[in-house]
Amino acid sequence: MTASSPSTGAFAPLQSDSFLRACLRQATDHTPVWLMRQAGRYLPEYRDTRAKAGSFMGLATNTDYATEVTLQPLDRYPLDAAILFSDILTVPDAMGLGLSFALGEGPKFAKSVRDETAVAALAVPDMDKLRYVFDAVTSIRRALNGRVPLIGFSGSPWTLACYMVEGAGSDDYRHVKTLMYARPDLMHRILAINADAVAAYLNAQIEAGAQAVMVFDSWGGVLADGNFQTFSLAYTARVLAQLRREHAGARIPRIVFTKGGGLWLDDMGRLDCEVLGLDWTVNLGRARAAVGGQAGGPGKALQGNIDPNVLFADPRQIAAEVERTLASFGAPHQAPAGDPDQVGPTHIFNLGHGISQHTPPDHVAALVEAVHAGSRRMRQH
Amino acid sequence: MTASSPSTGAFAPLQSDSFLRACLRQATDHTPVWLMRQAGRYLPEYRDTRAKAGSFMGLATNTDYATEVTLQPLDRYPLDAAILFSDILTVPDAMGLGLSFALGEGPKFAKSVRDETAVAALAVPDMDKLRYVFDAVTSIRRALNGRVPLIGFSGSPWTLACYMVEGAGSDDYRHVKTLMYARPDLMHRILAINADAVAAYLNAQIEAGAQAVMVFDSWGGVLADGNFQTFSLAYTARVLAQLRREHAGARIPRIVFTKGGGLWLDDMGRLDCEVLGLDWTVNLGRARAAVGGQAGGPGKALQGNIDPNVLFADPRQIAAEVERTLASFGAPHQAPAGDPDQVGPTHIFNLGHGISQHTPPDHVAALVEAVHAGSRRMRQH
Repeated sequence: MTASSPSTGAFAPLQSDSFLRACLRQATDHTPVWLMRQAGRYLPEYRDTRAKAGSFMGLATNTDYATEVTLQPLDRYPLDAAILFSDILTVPDAMGLGLSFALGEGPKFAKSVRDETAVAALAVPDMDKLRYVFDAVTSIRRALNGRVPLIGFSGSPWTLACYMVEGAGSDDYRHVKTLMYARPDLMHRILAINADAVAAYLNAQIEAGAQAVMVFDSWGGVLADGNFQTFSLAYTARVLAQLRREHAGARIPRIVFTKGGGLWLDDMGRLDCEVLGLDWTVNLGRARAAVGGQAGGPGKALQGNIDPNVLFADPRQIAAEVERTLASFGAPHQAPAGDPDQVGPTHIFNLGHGISQHTPPDHVAALVEAVHAGSRRMRQH
Repeated sequence: MTASSPSTGAFAPLQSDSFLRACLRQATDHTPVWLMRQAGRYLPEYRDTRAKAGSFMGLATNTDYATEVTLQPLDRYPLDAAILFSDILTVPDAMGLGLSFALGEGPKFAKSVRDETAVAALAVPDMDKLRYVFDAVTSIRRALNGRVPLIGFSGSPWTLACYMVEGAGSDDYRHVKTLMYARPDLMHRILAINADAVAAYLNAQIEAGAQAVMVFDSWGGVLADGNFQTFSLAYTARVLAQLRREHAGARIPRIVFTKGGGLWLDDMGRLDCEVLGLDWTVNLGRARAAVGGQAGGPGKALQGNIDPNVLFADPRQIAAEVERTLASFGAPHQAPAGDPDQVGPTHIFNLGHGISQHTPPDHVAALVEAVHAGSRRMRQH
């Protein structure tokens, strides 16, 4: 083991593989569940750690703090996966754009990328600038000690470009779309650099210990039909083509989530990835019919898709919504006796977007319990 | 003619009926075009009138000012329809919730509707409180003097409820969705009242002179699959069922636009209305195949759907995007000789959402010119 490349051979064996099996469309005894942004502000212990760290980036760049907050939700709930605590915008930060988060506000870049000069200055960053992320991955993987698998992630090339051009979040994407419509050559240049950077970044997370990776295309859904395929999907595909398929003898499933991408599910079904994330506007049964495949055949595992606002109802109502979501996907894949790894349609339960900071923590317990109990019951029928 | 019910018999005959014909799926010699929010802040003459009026509501409630700004874009561009200058939230304002607009910000209500007591206090408002809108409709119709048809409009029951419960715009719809998930009984009560109020409001606009009406379901797209049908679409249908089909001997087409509703196009295809509005995420050719119908058969006219941000590109690029949009819909309905009113698939060109206040006015001229010229060329092939 060297300082620059921590060994991953020493990781403890995995005790709970339902998430990874479901990603690979293998049967499980329950529907695995994790929640986007599960380590976050709705947890008082997270707010305590963030207060100690001083800022969001102080939290994300400190290995011990990042490890601590990643494990917090696992100590409360029997979740089936952990996800690296970080931000989707670390890559453009490493490109020198200067990421910061004012308390209670969204991300902001010190520099935005809106003209030929700014685009010419962009390059795939030295991955050493993202060492803090890879160190966190290895530290979290060790701390998990095999409890559940660890998911790494990045923003998609298009989503990173949205923030890089706008300089912050936006409600109309005026600047990034102006660049796209008026200077498609510059936009393609940004996206190609982003794709290669994201691929290197995710591969380094895999080498550091991530057991699955997810691409968050949070803003793909703001694009026009046609432009989504050209400016978002094609560059997500460019990332996927460069990713490691396995590491240390294990397959590394790749998840792609386009918020608002339900209309383009058929296109996404052709991506070279194992899992598609879906938001709550999508009918899970129809998505399964479109891209979920048949037993013994090819297809995508589906991840999602309950509205995070369901968690503001009472626990009885949350359980009813969970039942509705499980039923919408329908009976999950159950492997025939003697062929436990035969593939078929699988569902990974999640929210359709990140959990709200206002969520009562005990409502999350009700959701996780309902997913586990309800999905076990489904398998007994 | 009485003060309480201005006669509409005196209106000048219509000189340009391509918009109304296209709504009814009748052939036209070009694709009609108008733009959502075409009377608005991107026009310097609008900003001048608004400055005189002092506030947005000062503008909307003054018949002369509302007439003046409605006609401003028609004096610049050969648009095929006018749309009443007003706001989608006049109905809840008339319910006593106190609508206001701070400069540069979105709408805000003095009171929000979040509990049983507030819901119990809601009722269909006395339409006399909206007299300023009906007076504006009649005044605009007179001022148009038959140049182009006048469209009336309202927010949809669900979209009104979003603002009524949130008290303003929102980025997560937490309060309205909490009410929906936790107290569906209260949400249904709000929506039933809204639907009946919107129907009365649109019928009064029709009686005052509106020649078509549009329901803006601006926030239908934030709902989960299943909830959209239950909490938005069903109440839009309740509005449509109560609307006048004709007035003063003319049919009154009804347009429904759900932003982000592309996934539910088949459901919307069953609405009792003539036209469906589409945003830019929808493929016009696929939408036409799904709900546009065949020559001589039933179906919906389609309205949309270019990304308003296209208007930030240069005029040559705008023209290319217009061509792409026209081609995406494909060859429009052309009636056989001897049967000019035979129905078939038609397209009404529009943006997929309201025009941005930052739009250069001469770019709008380029778009309108490209629609008219390109769609005339298409009909010659």
